[in-house]
Amino acid sequence: MAADKLDGLAGVLDSSVILTTDEDMAPYLADWRGRYAGRARAVLRPHSVGEVSAILRWASATLTPVFPQGGNTGLVGGATPDERGTGVVLELGRLNRIQDIDTAGNTLVVEAGAILANVQQAAADAGRLFPMSLGSEGSCQIGGIIATNAGGIHVIRYGTTRELVLGLDYVLADGTIVHGLKRLAKNNTGYDLRNLLIGSEGTLAVITAAALKLFPRPAASASACCAVASPQKAVDLLSLLRERLVGRISSFELMCDGEMGLVLAGDASLRLPVAARAPWYVFIEVADSGGESVLVEALTAVLGRCLEDGTILDAAIAQNEAQAKAIWHLRFAVSEANRRAGPNVSHDTSVATADVPAFLAAVSAALKDRFPPARPLFVGHVGDGNIHVVALFPRDGFQGPAAFEATASAVNDCVFAVVQRFNGSISAEHGIGRSLAGHLPGHTDPAAYRLMRGIKQLYDPLGILNPGKVLSRA
Amino acid sequence: MAADKLDGLAGVLDSSVILTTDEDMAPYLADWRGRYAGRARAVLRPHSVGEVSAILRWASATLTPVFPQGGNTGLVGGATPDERGTGVVLELGRLNRIQDIDTAGNTLVVEAGAILANVQQAAADAGRLFPMSLGSEGSCQIGGIIATNAGGIHVIRYGTTRELVLGLDYVLADGTIVHGLKRLAKNNTGYDLRNLLIGSEGTLAVITAAALKLFPRPAASASACCAVASPQKAVDLLSLLRERLVGRISSFELMCDGEMGLVLAGDASLRLPVAARAPWYVFIEVADSGGESVLVEALTAVLGRCLEDGTILDAAIAQNEAQAKAIWHLRFAVSEANRRAGPNVSHDTSVATADVPAFLAAVSAALKDRFPPARPLFVGHVGDGNIHVVALFPRDGFQGPAAFEATASAVNDCVFAVVQRFNGSISAEHGIGRSLAGHLPGHTDPAAYRLMRGIKQLYDPLGILNPGKVLSRA
Repeated sequence: MAADKLDGLAGVLDSSVILTTDEDMAPYLADWRGRYAGRARAVLRPHSVGEVSAILRWASATLTPVFPQGGNTGLVGGATPDERGTGVVLELGRLNRIQDIDTAGNTLVVEAGAILANVQQAAADAGRLFPMSLGSEGSCQIGGIIATNAGGIHVIRYGTTRELVLGLDYVLADGTIVHGLKRLAKNNTGYDLRNLLIGSEGTLAVITAAALKLFPRPAASASACCAVASPQKAVDLLSLLRERLVGRISSFELMCDGEMGLVLAGDASLRLPVAARAPWYVFIEVADSGGESVLVEALTAVLGRCLEDGTILDAAIAQNEAQAKAIWHLRFAVSEANRRAGPNVSHDTSVATADVPAFLAAVSAALKDRFPPARPLFVGHVGDGNIHVVALFPRDGFQGPAAFEATASAVNDCVFAVVQRFNGSISAEHGIGRSLAGHLPGHTDPAAYRLMRGIKQLYDPLGILNPGKVLSRA
Repeated sequence: MAADKLDGLAGVLDSSVILTTDEDMAPYLADWRGRYAGRARAVLRPHSVGEVSAILRWASATLTPVFPQGGNTGLVGGATPDERGTGVVLELGRLNRIQDIDTAGNTLVVEAGAILANVQQAAADAGRLFPMSLGSEGSCQIGGIIATNAGGIHVIRYGTTRELVLGLDYVLADGTIVHGLKRLAKNNTGYDLRNLLIGSEGTLAVITAAALKLFPRPAASASACCAVASPQKAVDLLSLLRERLVGRISSFELMCDGEMGLVLAGDASLRLPVAARAPWYVFIEVADSGGESVLVEALTAVLGRCLEDGTILDAAIAQNEAQAKAIWHLRFAVSEANRRAGPNVSHDTSVATADVPAFLAAVSAALKDRFPPARPLFVGHVGDGNIHVVALFPRDGFQGPAAFEATASAVNDCVFAVVQRFNGSISAEHGIGRSLAGHLPGHTDPAAYRLMRGIKQLYDPLGILNPGKVLSRA
């Protein structure tokens, strides 16, 4: 049967679109961390929206599961096919043209498969800023960014992906092409289908192009690293900065000292920017039009006051771009440091910003109580209330992957129970994918979850689009 | 039958909730401009979410249409009951408590019936800014603001209502209460039901409470009125301002000289801020932390350069708050001036900002060609590409309301045809309501329109919620 299926497809697509050998398919069948792996009949790499439409028409006619994939950089298994091997991966990387840049209106129109870093560069070349920035920007695709409503380090200033997308073109499960790509800042014509697709992780439709918002490039920026005694002090510092430097805070990140220790231990070339180790560190970037000296002066004034009144213990303000890069390198080295440090279970939680200190204390206590061998580590976007909680286990802590997965699941339950007490989110920016699909019903209003199932049924009545992701199989 | 229906309701609600006399109901049965009027069995004014739920359970059981209503200040007839008289108006004004203000996290939790100005004031009393601002803020309600995704004069800086809402509580058509009110900046747990409700104009559910974003209060602000030769010059000025005063532009409004003439003619106390009449005027507000003098200096520098290079013809920068108020009074006097000036047909269009000059020229030409007696007037939020196109007819231009309505419909068609050529929106910020429901299918991708109908069917299978609004009757 399966061979017949692909034959039907070969009749309407160029042969270069269809990859079927194990070697050709391998990069698309497992996620980059090697955490999720699946199988597929084929990997399809269309060149055009017409080919995407043809693929979905064929998939609907043959009831073939379709797993849309961007740069395959996700953290929740949202882009990996399942183990059944009955479906196809639909990889969008060949639809990668930047179609239009409008500097007067500050918009950029791009196909879904364009790599984020290329979009950032195209905006920069036009004298503008596309502010989405995250670790995988060198390989993640715009379509994936949108399908997962990605966050990153500039959300505090520019919002999540949701707030950067003006319009979308997409293809429905039956192959219908929907033209929704308007470059409008305001448009109140009916229900907000655009935001319904943003964050739907390929389960409702396949995004093919987007109109994005651009911003002026700030002429000046300044970075600092501060040592603080507690998360509460970090929240206090943020409040003051927000008041004194309205609209200029581009990043405000928090890291615990345990995490800093791992980062520094992993790379001998790295240096602590402040004079001595402290319980917590804050990473700040501010940016503005006008002169750099004015901005550095303003930041220095705020941090000086905070030193005096005890809000912060120490501060290092970057005096040049190399120093700024060195500060931010510490923040960006976290993922790699954790990977090296040993088996760990990480979470993407958020709570109201004011609740962050109490939440971190509660999570820390719960983990220490339930999992004494684990070290709780915290790093994240405290300005968004989004903290990545990491439970780091000893290197020899598990007898094989199954033992690890069992403990990981128990750690998830432990952390998520605390999240629920704080009315927080079990997935602030990474999405649900396959890894959290089973947890979603327990953390969603039951009527809201039924509505989500209804929406899935409306958009994808045959259930061919990314089955098993976001919503668990019924 | 109808009496029995209300009897069933009286059993579960306090009698103070149910208004049935003509006198009591009158304020809720027509819109404030007197453009739309309807009838109803009763006007229901619940005190609690439980009562809202009871009303909707009863309405579902008896198949009674429910017309949710906030401050009744809409411009498209979205809150007015229809002429059948078989339904009830559900007015939310008694659910008006501000439940929580969190100054560390910059959030405010409020019930749907709270008046916008009261929310602004509560935020101000806490040293924060709730930036939504529009003409009807003294009487419009938060629930209506959210249900219509209202815009206003600060969208250029803070976004539309959509971008100011963190979470919603609401009641479904069958009376089910949905708890979605989280105070989270980031939350990627499943489909975005929140944005689906925002802008759904009471056709999918009844919003009962919201968590809103607050902002720091800028310590300094400055206002200016500039004379410019053309809309293109206004767009050029905006580009330069955006670059030089990154993140500080709170409002950027455009008005044609014809409109200015009407405004000045209507109130002898008003003065033109610039030295002489000009083809177009721009109204600017910038706001920032720090000192007022620094901000005024920066604005003066940009406008000085624009005077030199011919981008603007003249500029008046307010030297004190009284002058700033006088400048903005001109902008806010537009609605009243138009009401007085004679029969007029107004539109709420948007296009990409860069297209505004060509769009205005095309609309102007089309109106002059098709409706020679009409004067085209333009005023709006040019920074959002959102221009209100007004066709003003001679006072004695119509023999009765029917003749006016027929012409109004033809004027709509004429303007909307130009909007379509520019891939714009027929409703940027006012919504669809009943007045544009018939136009929506012609300006929406057919598959997208089918999805909207499917969403309506999913949320409101009996069709009792605000029937005939947004989507025309099937």
